[in-house]
Amino acid sequence: MSTDIPRYIRVHTDDNVAIVVNANGLPAGTRFPCGLELREAVPEGHKVALADIGQGAAILRYGQVIGHATRAIQRGDWIDETLVQLPNAPSLDSLSLATAPPPPCPAAGEHTFLGYRNADGSAGTRNVLGISTSVQCVAGVVDHAVRRIKAELLPRYPNVDDVIALNHAYGCGVAIAAPEAVIPIRTLQNLALNPNLGGSVMVVGLGCEKLQPEQLMPASADPKAFAEAHIVRLQDERHLGFNDMIDSILTMAEQRLAELNTRRREPCPVSDLVVGLQCGGSDAFSGVTANPAVGYAADLLVQAGATVMFSEVTEVRDAIHLLTPRAADEEVARALIREMDWYDRYLDKGGANRSANPTPGNKRGGLANVVEKALGSIAKSGTSPIVDVLSPGQRPTRHGLIFAATPASDFVCGTLQLASGMTIEVFTTGRGTPYGLAMAPVIKVATRTSLAKRWHDLMDVDAGRIATGEASIEQVGQEIFDLIIEVASGNQTTWADHWGLHNALTLFNPAPIT
Amino acid sequence: MSTDIPRYIRVHTDDNVAIVVNANGLPAGTRFPCGLELREAVPEGHKVALADIGQGAAILRYGQVIGHATRAIQRGDWIDETLVQLPNAPSLDSLSLATAPPPPCPAAGEHTFLGYRNADGSAGTRNVLGISTSVQCVAGVVDHAVRRIKAELLPRYPNVDDVIALNHAYGCGVAIAAPEAVIPIRTLQNLALNPNLGGSVMVVGLGCEKLQPEQLMPASADPKAFAEAHIVRLQDERHLGFNDMIDSILTMAEQRLAELNTRRREPCPVSDLVVGLQCGGSDAFSGVTANPAVGYAADLLVQAGATVMFSEVTEVRDAIHLLTPRAADEEVARALIREMDWYDRYLDKGGANRSANPTPGNKRGGLANVVEKALGSIAKSGTSPIVDVLSPGQRPTRHGLIFAATPASDFVCGTLQLASGMTIEVFTTGRGTPYGLAMAPVIKVATRTSLAKRWHDLMDVDAGRIATGEASIEQVGQEIFDLIIEVASGNQTTWADHWGLHNALTLFNPAPIT
Repeated sequence: MSTDIPRYIRVHTDDNVAIVVNANGLPAGTRFPCGLELREAVPEGHKVALADIGQGAAILRYGQVIGHATRAIQRGDWIDETLVQLPNAPSLDSLSLATAPPPPCPAAGEHTFLGYRNADGSAGTRNVLGISTSVQCVAGVVDHAVRRIKAELLPRYPNVDDVIALNHAYGCGVAIAAPEAVIPIRTLQNLALNPNLGGSVMVVGLGCEKLQPEQLMPASADPKAFAEAHIVRLQDERHLGFNDMIDSILTMAEQRLAELNTRRREPCPVSDLVVGLQCGGSDAFSGVTANPAVGYAADLLVQAGATVMFSEVTEVRDAIHLLTPRAADEEVARALIREMDWYDRYLDKGGANRSANPTPGNKRGGLANVVEKALGSIAKSGTSPIVDVLSPGQRPTRHGLIFAATPASDFVCGTLQLASGMTIEVFTTGRGTPYGLAMAPVIKVATRTSLAKRWHDLMDVDAGRIATGEASIEQVGQEIFDLIIEVASGNQTTWADHWGLHNALTLFNPAPIT
Repeated sequence: MSTDIPRYIRVHTDDNVAIVVNANGLPAGTRFPCGLELREAVPEGHKVALADIGQGAAILRYGQVIGHATRAIQRGDWIDETLVQLPNAPSLDSLSLATAPPPPCPAAGEHTFLGYRNADGSAGTRNVLGISTSVQCVAGVVDHAVRRIKAELLPRYPNVDDVIALNHAYGCGVAIAAPEAVIPIRTLQNLALNPNLGGSVMVVGLGCEKLQPEQLMPASADPKAFAEAHIVRLQDERHLGFNDMIDSILTMAEQRLAELNTRRREPCPVSDLVVGLQCGGSDAFSGVTANPAVGYAADLLVQAGATVMFSEVTEVRDAIHLLTPRAADEEVARALIREMDWYDRYLDKGGANRSANPTPGNKRGGLANVVEKALGSIAKSGTSPIVDVLSPGQRPTRHGLIFAATPASDFVCGTLQLASGMTIEVFTTGRGTPYGLAMAPVIKVATRTSLAKRWHDLMDVDAGRIATGEASIEQVGQEIFDLIIEVASGNQTTWADHWGLHNALTLFNPAPIT
């Protein structure tokens, strides 16, 4: 279809605003087929008033109040962020708990992907040797070793996809006994157990650090045997200099590579998938194109028994009243409130609040505030009941739709989702980001066709076709579901993996450093 | 000399403890030449009681109280950490301010190094193209670009030492308006201005991030001209896909490389050096071998007019009563107290305190607590007057001995010292660490000969010879001073640089993430 026809999207029948679809925005005087005339120019993705809105009256999008008019607004006006007064966040004391859980999804037909089966019952989408580190001190040595492993050893083990160093900024110089230190420690422990690493835990430590390498040992392991076969400690007396350290790491890595190399992809039910959902660089289209399509794919995954995690507390907080009713039971609803409350207090302690969330780019993309952003963000969660809530970095124990509490920072969220066992991620973006992870493939979904076209070799799916009417939410959602299966099976490569665009692990450490 | 002779070091005539020097410790029954007999085995670096100490009595080292005896101790006993009760930290309300500033150092003779002169008057020890980043989102793309720049462009510009990406975990998903956000923002701004980067600021940004690339512009630059010639913004409409982005980065990098390539080393006075001092993986020898030798070198540098920074608030806090008298004036003394107080409150807010500082390795190395660690740590500062105090990441405006307030975490401290303009670092270690930085050379000084021998290709200086009597503090200090000049001049390579051991930049962000 032509994009010359003036076009807007109104999400809900109650809404008194709509967003302009046309890629270059629309000039003053533009008349829509419905008769609405623009009183001023409105950029792409920005809001136009569908009716007169008195000063102080509610501005409605998604059928929800996104704010109140700071002055009288006339039908056809551009509603930029300065006209929208941020409402209070929903109180956590009066929410409906598990009052409207959707019926459990009907069991879907047989769906499988080709995964790597692990001894603990999980299944990976990749067969990667991950080298865990107990402290940042060893990062330079491990990077050096990984370069040599990739050049000298990996070619001899062709069934292993990659070798990666799990470097991070924790382990020493930190208040390791502080109340919140549990978060980074648990994250590192669970990262080592990510199914894409095949249960093949290997740790490089220094020796004198606060986080001792043994703390990264799987709970089931025998401490003595583990230390001998799985830990290289640089300060051990037996290392006479640098090359000895590198030799020790290479020798242990080769044992792990030999184990991993015996593995082959095999059909696994989709219920073995652990899918993370995230958005970054959002715009006003996120909530009407990419996120609803991902939500549809999430519903399909849940129907097939998969574990699906949505996250980002600060982008859920203002829509929490829409989520607690969807909790499978009151306990889950209370856990949702617990995580919101923890974050409210965390931000407050640092002199920040939720208004800090939208970025300059979000605003240029048409998002007036965090309420509008949150209403669009939760569309990723689809319509399934929420069956569990994870504190940052915890591993899930149930299948279905799960809220994994994390900051909204893309990298911190991605790292925590990896710790929670994520084996593949779906990431929506409106402004565009080259985000990628080394430990799991990331499928990137553009909210706008203009971005998908411009970043033709970075975006994996164009959900902008929903805005232009070229495809339905269901069609794009099905496309995303199918692509998840193909990428998880190793049949298709994401653009981020194609170019090797991988962001560093970034731990969430709310405790002090020392 | 033979290490078979039982040997201990008593630092101060008031001390009622000494530390055992012998590399394998000493067995019970060992008799020292002075007549002291060990009542039990004492490991290397651990404390032996030189006199009977009653329960609750003061245990003295460096002539200072490091704690009180938790039970009656007999002459010849091993005083392990459990026998030393942590005293209260010195109150910040009753310190002597600038009461005993040492006389300013006499001007030393002519000392020069071969440095790269910058337009702003500073001088670098390296000629490096640094690519700053405004947000972590771009890290994958910049890493990819740097690989290509190194392979395709750098060989054509032989006078440029290296190309490095200044990647970090800040820029978006952070509470950028929180009170403490000033620290990471200032750090990134000042990192871009490090003298080793030749004033050649180049920034890669995304476009929608909270920290906009323009915020990394030097204060003197013209905004429009800077944006055109020095910023690549990935979301700019002109980038049609990934290769366009890479081309833009390579084109701009080549302009910068051409500028840097015209530079040559020239004699610069030592007063142009900005030297950072740090310790990591400390042991009981740190305060009697490596740190005093570094302190002697620091005095020589200050005499020659250099800027010398010591840091690490939590490792200075318990010796603050020895530092405020050395302040050049009351204002500097009050600034010292201000930084201690800020950190006290920061730790308190996070439910931590100074007892969190010593690591398991510090303790195995003989350090009972943070008091003993701090007394040894400040020996690095030598005997000069303290002329200035920097908040984390600030740039110095005076030459001489400066306290640059930072956490003690090696990587956070190193990153902040780089932001403060450090062009070369001296790092002492007792347990051993392969620490290194990409932006400035790091000279590593071992506190013990046993470590220096075992890590023969990682340690640059063996200060353990002071403990065994093979060299004096002054001799090793002079050796360190000479090595600083040689490394700063590019005549000698540190082991960390030889192997390419470079830790990631790690920002100090006391503000919340969102």
